[in-house]
Amino acid sequence: MPHEIAPRSGVAFALDRGQRLSVIDPEGGQVADLLAFNRDDIGEVISSGRTIDYASRLYLSAGDPLYSNRSNVMLDIVEDDVGRHDFLLTPCSKAMFRIIYGDEQPHQGCFGNLAEALAPYGVTEDMIPIAFNCFMNVPVDGATGEIVVLPPLSKAGDRIVFEARMDLVIGLTACSALQSNGGSFKPIHWEVA
Amino acid sequence: MPHEIAPRSGVAFALDRGQRLSVIDPEGGQVADLLAFNRDDIGEVISSGRTIDYASRLYLSAGDPLYSNRSNVMLDIVEDDVGRHDFLLTPCSKAMFRIIYGDEQPHQGCFGNLAEALAPYGVTEDMIPIAFNCFMNVPVDGATGEIVVLPPLSKAGDRIVFEARMDLVIGLTACSALQSNGGSFKPIHWEVA
Repeated sequence: MPHEIAPRSGVAFALDRGQRLSVIDPEGGQVADLLAFNRDDIGEVISSGRTIDYASRLYLSAGDPLYSNRSNVMLDIVEDDVGRHDFLLTPCSKAMFRIIYGDEQPHQGCFGNLAEALAPYGVTEDMIPIAFNCFMNVPVDGATGEIVVLPPLSKAGDRIVFEARMDLVIGLTACSALQSNGGSFKPIHWEVA
Repeated sequence: MPHEIAPRSGVAFALDRGQRLSVIDPEGGQVADLLAFNRDDIGEVISSGRTIDYASRLYLSAGDPLYSNRSNVMLDIVEDDVGRHDFLLTPCSKAMFRIIYGDEQPHQGCFGNLAEALAPYGVTEDMIPIAFNCFMNVPVDGATGEIVVLPPLSKAGDRIVFEARMDLVIGLTACSALQSNGGSFKPIHWEVA
């Protein structure tokens, strides 16, 4: 049975080198922000800037490695039912809900959920970079550079599977931003094999 | 007289709130990687993920603020002769030269130059994020997500001007990657007013 992450919440857990993590969208249309840290040296963290540079591509899928800020491969994407994820944007946060949504009493968002879940592993807020946002659908206009956040393309039961290339701490959420999730908050499932 | 950054090198310096920093491409076709840290709390650093999220645009120019990892505005772009800069990619590094160029004895790149110049301010390698890469020309294919590094659009004497919104430490380079600079390494000029 997979683990369930309740809507607008997050978890952290250990993932050993060689293990496979499945991130599953049980109802469809729900984003899951994923972070990875080197469990033996927590300053090493997933890096969108290095990964995109080496892939020469914004959109990553099965076959693509995810690199760290030290240019080591942390995870390989080994299966992908959806083919569209985001690796440009930081996790939603109180500040983001204030600036973009105008919320006066904002939710702590994926950023707060990740910070809370990862704190026992020694991760501080300033160490949280751009996440690999599973199922997040952010098309780019090549001419103007404009980006837009559309509902995910994931359908009920779709999954993306990662294989760990080092011993990791994983942070994972059921995303808290309305726009990213087609207007409703749903759970995320995950399992390790 | 502006300061000169020699080809393939970098500097760090203080920039006070309200001061304006001009980054000038004296010969044309040369990239300058720019980092900004909060001088009073060095864990606060420029964030591409938050800036792009709030701008809803990859390509930034005059009028756009550059946000920190705590969602505070660090710099405003106040003038821009070129209109095309990159905010997707991490500074070129030994690892990047090995992986992309196949160099066996790689240059330390902008990453090494920035780390060296910023060390006296308490910045460590793991604290170096995606830089704001002045004049770097990285078009995106909206359909496939593919990116390509083309020669800069900057001509001799072109500049981009930033105004500091807090007391900062700036890291700035004359970029060390052949592909980013149209095949030759040139100096960068900067001045503070």
